[in-house]
Amino acid sequence: MVKHMFLEDVNNLISDDKWLIFQNEYNTEVNPRYETLFTLTNGYMGVRGTFEEGSEGERSGNFIAGIFDKSDAQVREIVNAQNWLRIKLYVEGEELSLDKCQLIEFKRILDMKKGILFRSMLIKDSKDRITRIEGYRFISRSDLHRSAIKLFVTPVNYSGVVGIESIIDGTVLNSADSPKHRVKHLKVADNSSLNKSGVYLETATIDDDIRIATGSAVRLYHYEDKEKNNIAKFKRFLPLGEMSIEYFEFDGTENKTVVIDKFIITYTSRDVKKGLLKSTVEKELFAFAGEGIDKELQRHIEVYEELWSVADINIEGDEEADKALRFNIFHLMSSVNENDPMVSIAAKALHGEGYKGHVFWDTEIFMLPFFIYVHPKAAKTLLMYRYNMLDAARKNAALNGYKGAQYPWESADTGEEETPKWGFDYMGNPVRIWTGDLEHHITADIAFAVWEYFRATEDIEFMLNYGAEVIFETARFWVSRCEYVKELDRYEINNVIGPDEFHEHVDNNAYTDYLAKWNIKKGLELINMLKEKYPEHYHAISNKKCLTNEEMEKWKEVEEKIYIPYDKDKKLIEQFEGYFDKKDYVIDKFDENNMPIWPEGVDITKLGDTQLIKQADVVMLMLLLGEEFDEETKRINYEYYEKRTMHKSSLGPSMYAIMGLKVGDHKNAYQSFMRSANVDLVDNQGNTKEGLHAASAGGTWQVVVFGFGGMEIDKEGALNINSWLPEKWDKLSYKVFWKGNLIEVIVTKQEVTVKKLKGKGNIKVKVKGKELTIE
Amino acid sequence: MVKHMFLEDVNNLISDDKWLIFQNEYNTEVNPRYETLFTLTNGYMGVRGTFEEGSEGERSGNFIAGIFDKSDAQVREIVNAQNWLRIKLYVEGEELSLDKCQLIEFKRILDMKKGILFRSMLIKDSKDRITRIEGYRFISRSDLHRSAIKLFVTPVNYSGVVGIESIIDGTVLNSADSPKHRVKHLKVADNSSLNKSGVYLETATIDDDIRIATGSAVRLYHYEDKEKNNIAKFKRFLPLGEMSIEYFEFDGTENKTVVIDKFIITYTSRDVKKGLLKSTVEKELFAFAGEGIDKELQRHIEVYEELWSVADINIEGDEEADKALRFNIFHLMSSVNENDPMVSIAAKALHGEGYKGHVFWDTEIFMLPFFIYVHPKAAKTLLMYRYNMLDAARKNAALNGYKGAQYPWESADTGEEETPKWGFDYMGNPVRIWTGDLEHHITADIAFAVWEYFRATEDIEFMLNYGAEVIFETARFWVSRCEYVKELDRYEINNVIGPDEFHEHVDNNAYTDYLAKWNIKKGLELINMLKEKYPEHYHAISNKKCLTNEEMEKWKEVEEKIYIPYDKDKKLIEQFEGYFDKKDYVIDKFDENNMPIWPEGVDITKLGDTQLIKQADVVMLMLLLGEEFDEETKRINYEYYEKRTMHKSSLGPSMYAIMGLKVGDHKNAYQSFMRSANVDLVDNQGNTKEGLHAASAGGTWQVVVFGFGGMEIDKEGALNINSWLPEKWDKLSYKVFWKGNLIEVIVTKQEVTVKKLKGKGNIKVKVKGKELTIE
Repeated sequence: MVKHMFLEDVNNLISDDKWLIFQNEYNTEVNPRYETLFTLTNGYMGVRGTFEEGSEGERSGNFIAGIFDKSDAQVREIVNAQNWLRIKLYVEGEELSLDKCQLIEFKRILDMKKGILFRSMLIKDSKDRITRIEGYRFISRSDLHRSAIKLFVTPVNYSGVVGIESIIDGTVLNSADSPKHRVKHLKVADNSSLNKSGVYLETATIDDDIRIATGSAVRLYHYEDKEKNNIAKFKRFLPLGEMSIEYFEFDGTENKTVVIDKFIITYTSRDVKKGLLKSTVEKELFAFAGEGIDKELQRHIEVYEELWSVADINIEGDEEADKALRFNIFHLMSSVNENDPMVSIAAKALHGEGYKGHVFWDTEIFMLPFFIYVHPKAAKTLLMYRYNMLDAARKNAALNGYKGAQYPWESADTGEEETPKWGFDYMGNPVRIWTGDLEHHITADIAFAVWEYFRATEDIEFMLNYGAEVIFETARFWVSRCEYVKELDRYEINNVIGPDEFHEHVDNNAYTDYLAKWNIKKGLELINMLKEKYPEHYHAISNKKCLTNEEMEKWKEVEEKIYIPYDKDKKLIEQFEGYFDKKDYVIDKFDENNMPIWPEGVDITKLGDTQLIKQADVVMLMLLLGEEFDEETKRINYEYYEKRTMHKSSLGPSMYAIMGLKVGDHKNAYQSFMRSANVDLVDNQGNTKEGLHAASAGGTWQVVVFGFGGMEIDKEGALNINSWLPEKWDKLSYKVFWKGNLIEVIVTKQEVTVKKLKGKGNIKVKVKGKELTIE
Repeated sequence: MVKHMFLEDVNNLISDDKWLIFQNEYNTEVNPRYETLFTLTNGYMGVRGTFEEGSEGERSGNFIAGIFDKSDAQVREIVNAQNWLRIKLYVEGEELSLDKCQLIEFKRILDMKKGILFRSMLIKDSKDRITRIEGYRFISRSDLHRSAIKLFVTPVNYSGVVGIESIIDGTVLNSADSPKHRVKHLKVADNSSLNKSGVYLETATIDDDIRIATGSAVRLYHYEDKEKNNIAKFKRFLPLGEMSIEYFEFDGTENKTVVIDKFIITYTSRDVKKGLLKSTVEKELFAFAGEGIDKELQRHIEVYEELWSVADINIEGDEEADKALRFNIFHLMSSVNENDPMVSIAAKALHGEGYKGHVFWDTEIFMLPFFIYVHPKAAKTLLMYRYNMLDAARKNAALNGYKGAQYPWESADTGEEETPKWGFDYMGNPVRIWTGDLEHHITADIAFAVWEYFRATEDIEFMLNYGAEVIFETARFWVSRCEYVKELDRYEINNVIGPDEFHEHVDNNAYTDYLAKWNIKKGLELINMLKEKYPEHYHAISNKKCLTNEEMEKWKEVEEKIYIPYDKDKKLIEQFEGYFDKKDYVIDKFDENNMPIWPEGVDITKLGDTQLIKQADVVMLMLLLGEEFDEETKRINYEYYEKRTMHKSSLGPSMYAIMGLKVGDHKNAYQSFMRSANVDLVDNQGNTKEGLHAASAGGTWQVVVFGFGGMEIDKEGALNINSWLPEKWDKLSYKVFWKGNLIEVIVTKQEVTVKKLKGKGNIKVKVKGKELTIE
């Protein structure tokens, strides 16, 4: 076993290398990236990987799913809650500052198998005293309200008084690093010490008085003392305004290791009533500190084991790809709370303030497939968030003059539209942001996701009780959204933005129109199915939603007559009406990372006048509704649009990679996959510090399973495996749930093996066109 | 004229060199010392000389006289109030941090003539953009509630967006640099923007809900624009928890200077009713910002001119001494608020948190003579503080079982005893502090100060209405404090600490007993004078205070029989009973600064067993009551105790210097004087960062006027001048008020000239024994 740490006990806890992400150098320039990479989250709470001691330029973050506030911000945003990580050490009064002292050794390790962040350092202060600090932290996935930090502190070459500040820091801000945009979302409601032990900081959001309660307690003892007797000889509680501090002192002895156990309990008024918060936190903190860290850690590891038993994918022959993929899966599966149907996963997950904690189509289109196939319970919960926001979506539609339910482009806790109306361009000039007004495809994307979940799980309970209502209400929206053009006898959807955001205010975006058509059609199909198979549900819902036969007639008419711009001769779908008339530039130069370079002569302030696009749009359509397009159409459109896509979104490369593999263009697939897998690890977009590229993580999983792994659902709803492995890869194995069964697919260059691991009944699978039945 | 600054307007404002104190190097090690040296105060408020930008390791301080709080502290302490200095600059988003950017040029100048702190720097950021920042600040002595900062910001080699944060920072703590002792004394009561302009932060003390209200407003304009048109193109108010922030942006242009005028108004609920605080601040801020900085600055300078017209002392031939003395006088005279009889000057003045803002005998014995002779109105106000605390002193006496008024060793706003009971020794071990229990001489010191003021000013109004009551009540305390010892037929004062704190729990400390005796005697004298000359006052006060003839008999008896330990043969006063039996060590070695070295064999944990003393004790007695001792007694005692004084208090050297000069020992006088004058400038005690050595400043003035300048009052109450000049000095001239007249004394080695500058009536002065009458 590799020896990463000084103490054997800690070494023994660390998993094998394939599960580990390393930071080997302390550097204030790259620390903020590692803070994102080393974010720990259990879906309930996400805590960025800042240091206990704090560091220069850090962007601390503690985000609790579902806790939003506007206050002085532009829109409601995820609240950066009190930071309970803080533990500061003082040797004979001198602070062991990571920036002012000398770091002789430094290492951090994220253990993805166990969801633990390890650290180790040797730090020398101004008086040449050397202290070893190592330890770890975790946010329990077993009890979402429990977190813990364990630090081992060893005076290496001195003896002396060591002071410890254990802090819950409520001075936190959102946008803290921008003096122009800083916002305070919290005021302190209670800063006190707890009767039993520890300290308590309760904050309240400005707008809605949502309470966030944090309790923390510390135990100090000698490493070798099995009874863990307290060694603090001095202790004081300091309620310093917005900071709740416990200060301890112990007599440090040369080469004698002291253990600091910090127990943290978090509850909010979303979890328990306001009046019960403090007593709940106190009780739980007392129980946790009494039990000790190890048992909770063990349960936490067991939950991760369970998750990985399905989610882990092995790529043999390519360690880098194997680990990078695992990194994406780790963060994706850590970011969901399968038990809270009032929250979803934000574009940056719980890893940073980027995109203000808002939920976009990223969740349903890019991330959800992973959950549908790997953790269907979580997928259902994510869809339940949209179901629970239906009322707000109806309100949104009504506000805009439409019927049914129109989902917001950016969604927070209320489900209302949260897209900022104004932003800044690269020159700092204000620009109007139109996506909240015009990027309507989100509504069809959500209906699509409901259907995809149902297709894979056959969860009829969900569909009857929740999903159908989403599909009906979104279909209804589209019917009202379409405008009838009499002279052409067709329905149009004008003035939208499609997935490609270079072009605003376009008419009849093919992606939007096609998904709207599909959405209405699925609505009609569902109605018929209900009538036929579940008449009591049909009556109930048609009654509740006032669905009449007349309305169905209207739906049918609209569905049939929605216009999709299409060049029949070339078999080319036109991205939107008039797109082919735009100035045509073809990308022919790539930078050292094989990323497109702007073609010569392009005016980047007028991209709307060109055929250059930001990301997959028509290709995206053909990926989602693959069964609706023949292979030739896919190939032709892929080839056309691929040359015009600038990949200015991290969502792009993975989607082109999948489509490339489907139409036989393997040349860029591996590189696109690695770019997607490494977007955060290598920070190739330069903004990892803002949070995880969660959609890209989902896209990365999709490239492996749907692309290389070749899994797709055909028109008949059957599972197909049409795999293709990159040169380096010897073997790829992944697991998916399919209609209630857990199956494993093992792909080598020679053969494909499909095994059923769990579930009853036979499954039909087509491997490269050949039908197999697995028992 | 020396060119200190870049801009001519600023240069023209700066006084001649003899008025200037420089900081030429930015260094986080020495910055905290300069923060004390560069503290600006008008007696109402003291603001430490931290940087507008903030800096690493700074000890910011804003102390408002009379605002104390205990909360979680050991005792009531001066509150470190919200810091309104903060102005942070951002060039294209990068903070101009003094610690992270490169300081190409740096200079700060304290102009003592005008009470202005100037600064100038050239700062280079990480992108090699160079910005010149210069300007100044002042705390108005004309309107105590007004302060202002003027900064001139010039982009030297770039154009770009410059951001400005103007902050009122309420996150301040007391003992901020000690995680063990940090205390929060304030909570935010109001953080809002003002209707007219600017922002407002109102804080409340924890215990008593005393409110501190700060308003600040900023004006931004181009230097060359005489109309001062606003150039901020963006502005936002950010109420960030405990910080009230205005953020501005302007387009910075290469080589075009922008002026930032920051106006600050401070009021507290000691000044106006709570409900009126905000409207008062708003109105005053609007008026101040409307008028502009220059007029207030002019009025402020005029007040300083007036003060200096009496206070300034010129030493010709010794520039270092001349400037160092001026520095002491500057801070001493700046630290008094002659209009607030509810506050006094703390041991560290308003310059730091040292000694918690408490008032000791330092004020009456070391500082007050300066005010009595230079600024008698302020002297009266300082004594009125003690008069106003009489009730608390009575309560204190009653608590301890005594009669009359017993003043606390450490006094804050209530006048009750505020000496901490416990402290820490150099090893960090807790030690019981006995001074609050035992250092009783403070009560006689205050009575002495009342008398000294009266003697110099003949302010009979003060004496009749206030002073007499202090003397009676303190005399009464001493009478009750004395214990009659029947077998010796004498009164004793046992179990005290004298001025020398090496010896605790001593009996019959000569200083204490002699001053107690003197105090009772003065009480009796006063009674007689009142009876004789002011019978209506006598009747009123004897009625009010229940002074009976029987009690006067008792006073007389005690006064006559108080025991003073004395060795008749040697003409030596024994510091306390049994002192001469202690182990005798004589100091014979001195360090490179001519400070005593512990004699060999001394156990410094048992100093109470030796004759070594911390500071003047018997010598102090002979200085205060000089007219009671003949010259031989003074010389013998001086010689004896001088060899045994370790000078572990900054109060010591100046007192020995004066007595040395009186008894003809000139050898150490100049060095002692310079040590005293430089205690903060050179930081020879190493703790200047904690605040000004205010008593030493007063002592420094006393050495010059009472020592070298030779001024003393003889038994008949006549002014004597017995001067002696150090070798270097060509001429010394000082001014004093004497019995309502302002006189100037000009001393050269050849002659002494005494001039009357103001006042009516003749004055009798003895110059070296020769009587003169000055008309």
